[in-house]
Amino acid sequence: MADSTKAGSSDTVPHWEEIDSERIADCRIFDVFSKRFRHPGRESAGDFYVIQTRDWVNVVPITPDYQIVLVNQFRFGVKQTSWEIPGGVMEAGEDPVAAGLRELQEETGFTASKARLLGSVRPNPAIQSNTCHMVLAEKATLTHELEWDEHEELITKTVPIEEAFKMVERGEIFHSLVLNALLLFYPDWLKMQARRRD
Amino acid sequence: MADSTKAGSSDTVPHWEEIDSERIADCRIFDVFSKRFRHPGRESAGDFYVIQTRDWVNVVPITPDYQIVLVNQFRFGVKQTSWEIPGGVMEAGEDPVAAGLRELQEETGFTASKARLLGSVRPNPAIQSNTCHMVLAEKATLTHELEWDEHEELITKTVPIEEAFKMVERGEIFHSLVLNALLLFYPDWLKMQARRRD
Repeated sequence: MADSTKAGSSDTVPHWEEIDSERIADCRIFDVFSKRFRHPGRESAGDFYVIQTRDWVNVVPITPDYQIVLVNQFRFGVKQTSWEIPGGVMEAGEDPVAAGLRELQEETGFTASKARLLGSVRPNPAIQSNTCHMVLAEKATLTHELEWDEHEELITKTVPIEEAFKMVERGEIFHSLVLNALLLFYPDWLKMQARRRD
Repeated sequence: MADSTKAGSSDTVPHWEEIDSERIADCRIFDVFSKRFRHPGRESAGDFYVIQTRDWVNVVPITPDYQIVLVNQFRFGVKQTSWEIPGGVMEAGEDPVAAGLRELQEETGFTASKARLLGSVRPNPAIQSNTCHMVLAEKATLTHELEWDEHEELITKTVPIEEAFKMVERGEIFHSLVLNALLLFYPDWLKMQARRRD
């Protein structure tokens, strides 16, 4: 899952060509485009709506005693509160690991001395252009004041890693991209458990 | 993960109240709304953009010989082809399992004699209102002609289940919701492997 931009193998459908693009809505954190694509073989074209936005980053913050740092936020799309890992929108040109550590510190005040990219996914290839990067941040400790964006309001808590996976099973963590991050983290969690047993 | 609409526990942030909603773009398969929310305690309000769309369904189709049915499509959001499991938009009032079986048949011609809901996730709680249901369809066999929507063009292939998980590792399956479905299917796959060994 490391490289989401990998070209498909040859046994795939043909690539349509983009021949026109018009921005129809500016929604601050994303833009909506109407795009016209031409099929390479059929002599036909179609209009498709695409949501363009910067890449996103999610960070799995693990404390020295194998707790995971979770944040609770009110989410306006689903109109309910949601338990998630920290994350947000990347700056232009920002490295995914640096972005993950920045979001971690801004949202929770935690910093981490060890971090790496777990992998990257496409949030919705059909209607979204962007990529979401997943970062593992180890040895995370509370060191800083919070720096929330306007309207941001979070509750931070740390739970044992096994409890976070139980929250997944109980439906208390339901954000698809957070679930992706926990899936990518799972092999590391198995290794951490083996280390703790030694 | 069964119930994505579960209310948060009491240690969560407060719920904002929606006080206004205006549709600013009709994008055929989704609508974009500008919504005004009021914070319950702060005496402040803010405007947030929300993408409203019907619920979605993804289906994990397993053949009697433990292959998984994959489809390849050109995806206009990322402008590349994508290997995915079948899925699509649910009809109003449609049962998730029925919707999954319908999409499976329309997209691939496969039907399945055994199916159940694996779980449900929220594709993006921050900016999307909807839920994506994940359905397991077992004993799937090719029985029908294809019924593609306009502009739909798919290549179907069946691969051993273990190969699908290798495609995930190699970054050849990168759609976040498909990865969610495979995560939810994983415990069933462990049971299937145990059954095969007996």
